[in-house]
This record gives sequence, C-alpha cells and structure tokens, in this order.
Amino acid sequence: MELNCDIGEDYGQYTFHNDEQLLPYVNAVNIACGFHAGDFQSIAKTVTLAKNHHVHIGAHPGYPDIQGFGRRAIHFSADEIYHMMLYQLGAIDAFVKVKGATLHHVKPHGALYNSASTNELVATAIVNAIYDYNPELLLYGLSGSVLATIGEEKGLVVKHEVFADRTYQANGTLTDRKETNALIEDEELALEQVKTMLYHQKVKTIKGHYIPIKADTICVHGDTQKAIVLIKKIHPLLQN
Amino acid sequence: MELNCDIGEDYGQYTFHNDEQLLPYVNAVNIACGFHAGDFQSIAKTVTLAKNHHVHIGAHPGYPDIQGFGRRAIHFSADEIYHMMLYQLGAIDAFVKVKGATLHHVKPHGALYNSASTNELVATAIVNAIYDYNPELLLYGLSGSVLATIGEEKGLVVKHEVFADRTYQANGTLTDRKETNALIEDEELALEQVKTMLYHQKVKTIKGHYIPIKADTICVHGDTQKAIVLIKKIHPLLQN
Amino acid sequence: MELNCDIGEDYGQYTFHNDEQLLPYVNAVNIACGFHAGDFQSIAKTVTLAKNHHVHIGAHPGYPDIQGFGRRAIHFSADEIYHMMLYQLGAIDAFVKVKGATLHHVKPHGALYNSASTNELVATAIVNAIYDYNPELLLYGLSGSVLATIGEEKGLVVKHEVFADRTYQANGTLTDRKETNALIEDEELALEQVKTMLYHQKVKTIKGHYIPIKADTICVHGDTQKAIVLIKKIHPLLQN
Amino acid sequence: MELNCDIGEDYGQYTFHNDEQLLPYVNAVNIACGFHAGDFQSIAKTVTLAKNHHVHIGAHPGYPDIQGFGRRAIHFSADEIYHMMLYQLGAIDAFVKVKGATLHHVKPHGALYNSASTNELVATAIVNAIYDYNPELLLYGLSGSVLATIGEEKGLVVKHEVFADRTYQANGTLTDRKETNALIEDEELALEQVKTMLYHQKVKTIKGHYIPIKADTICVHGDTQKAIVLIKKIHPLLQN
Repeated sequence: MELNCDIGEDYGQYTFHNDEQLLPYVNAVNIACGFHAGDFQSIAKTVTLAKNHHVHIGAHPGYPDIQGFGRRAIHFSADEIYHMMLYQLGAIDAFVKVKGATLHHVKPHGALYNSASTNELVATAIVNAIYDYNPELLLYGLSGSVLATIGEEKGLVVKHEVFADRTYQANGTLTDRKETNALIEDEELALEQVKTMLYHQKVKTIKGHYIPIKADTICVHGDTQKAIVLIKKIHPLLQN
Repeated sequence: MELNCDIGEDYGQYTFHNDEQLLPYVNAVNIACGFHAGDFQSIAKTVTLAKNHHVHIGAHPGYPDIQGFGRRAIHFSADEIYHMMLYQLGAIDAFVKVKGATLHHVKPHGALYNSASTNELVATAIVNAIYDYNPELLLYGLSGSVLATIGEEKGLVVKHEVFADRTYQANGTLTDRKETNALIEDEELALEQVKTMLYHQKVKTIKGHYIPIKADTICVHGDTQKAIVLIKKIHPLLQN
Repeated sequence: MELNCDIGEDYGQYTFHNDEQLLPYVNAVNIACGFHAGDFQSIAKTVTLAKNHHVHIGAHPGYPDIQGFGRRAIHFSADEIYHMMLYQLGAIDAFVKVKGATLHHVKPHGALYNSASTNELVATAIVNAIYDYNPELLLYGLSGSVLATIGEEKGLVVKHEVFADRTYQANGTLTDRKETNALIEDEELALEQVKTMLYHQKVKTIKGHYIPIKADTICVHGDTQKAIVLIKKIHPLLQN
Repeated sequence: MELNCDIGEDYGQYTFHNDEQLLPYVNAVNIACGFHAGDFQSIAKTVTLAKNHHVHIGAHPGYPDIQGFGRRAIHFSADEIYHMMLYQLGAIDAFVKVKGATLHHVKPHGALYNSASTNELVATAIVNAIYDYNPELLLYGLSGSVLATIGEEKGLVVKHEVFADRTYQANGTLTDRKETNALIEDEELALEQVKTMLYHQKVKTIKGHYIPIKADTICVHGDTQKAIVLIKKIHPLLQN
C-alpha cells in the first residue's frame, strides 16, 4: 500500500497548501492540470518538485471551474468529458516529458471523481480517454467504484483508493461530505482505520460492521497541520 | 510555396467561420488550442476534419484571452510564454495522436505572433518551448522576422510566412492593422502581390519599391466570401 | 400578450444572431449579463440598441459558463445563486442607467431558468436577489412554474412566459430538449399553438389534451431565418 | 490624512490575506470587483465586513485577469476600459446597496492603476466611467498622476494617494517594482517617509532630494505580518 496526495493546486498569485511539506511522505502525487486548479506556471513548478522527490507523477484532471475548485458537478456529456480528459492529459504530459519524467497515473478530481464513482457514462468516458491516450497509464479511483471496475474491464491497471479520515457507508461508499459524520476528526481513529485496511483488508462502516475493502493506495490531504501529523504517523506503517 | 489557414476557432456555441469551405484549397492548417479560441470540443472536431483532408496539422497557440481573441498584447514574462506554449502544444497533440495523425508545425497566433516578430525574449521563449517539446516540429513565422531568425538559429525548420492581402513596409514588416492602408482590398492587386512573391521573390512596399522576400507559405483567411474567392484564384498558381 | 426575445449574446469577436432583425417585432428584450454570454462591450452596444427601439429592457442572468452558454446545470448553493444574481443585476443596470434607460425586468437564462422552474431553493434565491436589489423589477418565468409562484408570493410582478415552438407535457412543463418531439418544427402548428394560448388560454399537450395556461409573454428566438418568419406572423396577432 | 487598503481579493477556495486583521486600522477599503480578484461570494462577504467596521467602501476595479491578478498590462481600447469600469462599478454597487451601505470611492487596481497614472486615454476612460456612473464618487489615484489631474478637471473629488513602503523617483513617480530598490524594507525608514509626507508634505526621492507631494491617503498592504506591524505604527500618527 502507498500514500498519494493532490498537489499543484495553486493558481496565479494564489497558493493552496504547502506541497513541499507533504512530498517526503508520499509515493505518488496527483497534479492539477489547470481546469479545477493549477495553471501552466504551477504545473511547471510542481512537476519539477515531484521529479526531485522521486515520486510517481499523476495527472489530476477536473471540471473547468477554478472558482468552484472542481467541486461543483457540471452536466457534461460523455463526449465532452472524453475530450476534456484528453486536453488535460496532453497538457500536463508536455511538462512531464520536457522535464525528463514519465506520466505514471491519472486520478480524476473532486466532482468528476465522485460522478465517475457511480455514473457509468462518466466513468466510461474517463477510462476511454486514458486508454486511448496511453494504455500504460494507471487509473486511481475510489475502491470498489464503478470507475475502478470499468477501468479494469478496459484493461487499465487500477489502484483502488481508500481514505484515512473519511467514514464509510454499509455499501462501501464514502459518507457524503455534507453529513456531519463524514470526516474522522480523531487522529487515533483515523490511524486505526488505516491499520484495519492495511492488516485486515477491511473497514468499519458508520454502523459498526466490518466490510471487506481493497486498499492499494491511501489518499492524504495536506491542508492542515493536523493532516501533516497524521501522514507522519501513517507513513512508517507502510515502510515494508 | 503552399497555402496555410487558421481554423478551429469556434468556442462553445460560437462558430467563427466555415473551415470546411477552406480545407480543399490549403496545404497546412493552424488549429486554435483553447487559449485565444477553440476548446476541447472544437479541437477534437477540427483535428478530425484536418486529417480527413490530408493537410499538415499545426498548433496555433495564443494568449489566454477568449474575449480578446488573442489579439490584445498581454505583458507575459518569457517564463510564462514558454510554459503557456508547452501547455497548448501538449493539449492539442493529445488529440492529434489519438486521431492517428502527426503534429507538423506550430504558428503563434495574433498578438503573440506579432510580439514574437520583433521581440527577442518572446521569440526565444516560443522557439525554446517548441524545440524542447519536439524539435521535429516546423515553425511558421512572419517572413524575415526575429521569430524566424531565432527559430533557424536554434535548429528548427522554419517556414517564412507571407500575406496576400496585407501591405508591406519598407523594412519588410506588415503595415499595422490600425493603418487605413493595411489591407489590400482589391482582389486583383492581392493576386498580383502573390505572383510577385511567387515568381520574383519580391514584394512591392507601401512606398512603391520592390524588396526581396522569402515566401515559403502564404496565410489566407476564410472570414469572408471575398477571401474564399481569392483563395480559389491563388490555389491554381501553386499547383506545380 | 407581448413578445420577448433574448439578445446581446455575442462574446468578444463572436457573434450569435442578428438582434437588429428581431427588435422591430418584440416588446421586451432580455440582455445577457456576461456570465453565460455577453461581455461589457456587447452589453453597452445592446442596451443602446434596445433603448433606440423603445422596448422593455430586461436582465438575462445565467450560470458563469461561456463555453457551455449557460445551458449546463452547475450545482450552486442558494447563497451562490443569490450573489451571482446580484452581481449580474448590478453590472447590467450600470449600463442601463448611464444610457438613460430603466431596467424593467429579469429573466433567468438556460439551465438557471430550468432549475428555477422546479427547484424551490433556486427559485427562492433568484426571487430574493431581484426583490432585494429592486422590488419594482418584473420577473419573467415559465408559466405556472415554481419560480413564477415564489415570485408572486414575494410580491414581485410576474409575467408568465410561454413558447410558440416548444411542445408541452400533461403537467404544463416543456418537453425536454433532448426528446425528439420537443420542438414544433411546423410553422403553421406553432402559429396554431400561439392562437390557442392567446384566444383560449389553453395549450394542447403532447398527448393531445388541452390544459389551461397563463400566457403573459411569448418568448421567440432569432437563431434562424425560419424563426424570423414565425415572429413576423405572430407579431400582428398581438397588435390589439 | 487617512489609511486605505485593498481587500476582498479572495477567489473561490483561494484566500489572499487576512482582511479582518487590517480593518481596525484603516479608514477606507478598496474591494476587488471580480475581474483581477474577488468573486460574487467574496464581494458579499467583504462588503458586510467593511460595513461592520464603519470604513469608507470603495470599488477596486482591474483588468479581467484572475491568473495575472490584474498586474499584467493588457492592451485595451479606451472604449473597452470605459465599459469594463462601468460593469465592475455596477456589480459591486449592487452588493453595497443591498447591504444598506454607500459606495464612497473608486481606485483602479494594479496594471490599470499604473497605466492610468501616465496614459491620458486610459485615465480619461476611467474618469468618464466613474463620472457617468455616479459623479459623487471620489477617485483615489497616485498623487500627482495624470489620473488625478484628469479626475479633478472632470470635477471629481480626488484623493492623492501615497505609499509608505515604496521609493519615489525625482519626478514623483514610484520606482518600478522590477527595480531592486523599489520597496522600503526597513520599517523605520518607511515610518520616516510617512512622517515627512504628513508633517512636511514632501518625500525624499531615490537620489536624496526632497520634493513636494500631496498626500491625502496612504495605501497600506496586509500581505505580511511585517506590514501589519507598520500599519499599527502609522495608525496613531493620523489620529488627530
């Protein structure tokens, strides 16, 4: 199991969080491609940073909505999603190539990630764009999601993603962020959840039952100092 | 000598001109990359169209300014221009590859083209981005410009571009569009200018003198029916 | 009963349709405010045009999505909708005042219009923004919609809007544009529908039944020459 | 003499600096209008904040360039500048009115401020837009600038703006930010400059001479903790 994080989410003069603080603890990064966040300047800087830290470099495409940070669902057709994926993949790949690195994976962002978790049309458009662009690219998607399933059916290598600090429903989906119990605030409980996933391939649902879960990669966020502390505690668990 | 034209300049619901009408008469096209015009939908459609017409496919990158159509100069640093070029080259190339075609050349658009014609910093940033991305790409630039010179010095194959319907200054630059005599309205005079370039490698300046000009490719526009008529008259001149 | 149309939907170099052709036949216009279409240049030009034709000038606010022309639903909170309405109302009103005219009404555009027709939260946010900005403004909304009802409850003067060339469902809503029978292509049938609305306050649904409908204003579009022909036929019906 | 500061420069999820920390020490604020920074959400929040602190509320319009934060000059025509001013003035004024406050002044931002300081066409377009929108609005501009002069000639009340931490050239203009000595890093020197302006209506130029300067309002920035410290030292000087 590995750790991945979203980085390169600055925009113009605006900075989002401290990517450098996170990079020593993760194996893979997902770099914003300029649609939900990031621009040609942040991509250049972030790809260099990722290369210097020898982490797997991934594209983190999203809806074209800087103001909404890609977190607002927008009703796109499958055709639009396919093309908007291609555009972002090509754009970031240009920087990766020029910097002498290799694009390793793709992880959709925000509302696009959520739509793809349950919506077959969205998931298929994303999978087809990745496959057509470069079938060697890995797909990172929510563990057990429609996106992960369709990706595997297409022949992509899929990494099932889990979360340390999010609660799970009985059916294996994440509790909606709008619910009060969506986040695990207690760091020890979050660490406990990671251990259960890591050592037992299970997760305790919101109702207290244990269900099986496939955990190839854990997503961590670096927005708060608390998050950094949690990452530093998870990191040693994965070192063998 | 060949004919090239700018296409794929639609945006969302907005259409710009009839690309299909032009394509039978040109050898090379410059496709908008989504910054000054075009979006992921228009690029997909236009690359397919260009491939079907067996023309050379070029990228047509510009300043990020849809409202201004890339015709307003924006004070970018050389670093920003380099990265904004990479971004657009990668984005369009993704479509070209997925459609089974090959990117052939790059021609900067509008205010970026004009800046690069005289400004060394801008020209160098553009040339370096193209070279670093793919040194096999040809560069289309204003005949005799700083951009063309710097491109050749770097080792790019450069096509010197001339215009049928624009008047020339004594120093070989184009008359500024703001001047009343910038355009050659009379179709016969435009045709005459093309012939002088083609058969004598010269152009008659605004003051009536003939100066030498290198003419590898003629840019034609398809905005008006008059322009289409002119293209149809230029086309047969180049057929041997 | 009056005719209204959406105008001022150019953007930068892009033009949408011929507003001048429509203006002699309508009583009220809805001017794009720069979010789904239009910009500060088109607004200036269009407000002047509308004033010169002595028509009622309305604001036509939409989602911030030029590429999607405001036709894609975006998941905004009620708070965001309220503020995005205020912003657009103020922006266009500045031009109306400076040109010596008066803002008469507000009609939401595209996906915002559709959401407001059935969604109480969206409708309430829109109504509150209009009321708080200027309670004298009229609200144009789909006849019988949630928006119209909430507007009336708040105390706004509401104009119930009907369509000449759209088919109606049994419950009085418009047939979704994605359905093949959403549009009335036959101009005589469209004219017949207008007459039934005008003389009998009824509309024939897709299943052939007649249901009552409140018709204060008819929306006409000017995208096609066919549409212009229809407008010229509807216009004399309303002249007394 | 009073203190003014630029606030409301957040955008979507991005925050810029801590407006609340500054507000107790200033008399007037300039709120971003959504073009160079800010959006309908930040404007709503910031106008409320400003009203609660009983400071003079000003519009802070800029070039439409969120990525460049309005600091890149863009070649706009005078006509475009006039209309882009109107748009932003109307937009922010809607929030000011609905919150029960009054718009007090206008201060152009960044590259627009700089252009207007020396360029008559730009300055005239700005002044005309303000005057036509509401001639009661005060204009804040660089002390002794073309903008200030043209504003006064038009009949606007103009506040001549000075800077505590910027160095001045012999002709009274600010040293370009690109120069190494543009900023006064030493807080005591900055405070000294303020006192010279305040008590002697003079400023020491980069070459060591004292020249007269009109100082109605001092602009302070809140980007750094150091800036906050400086503001707290300037504030008591102005209290009588």
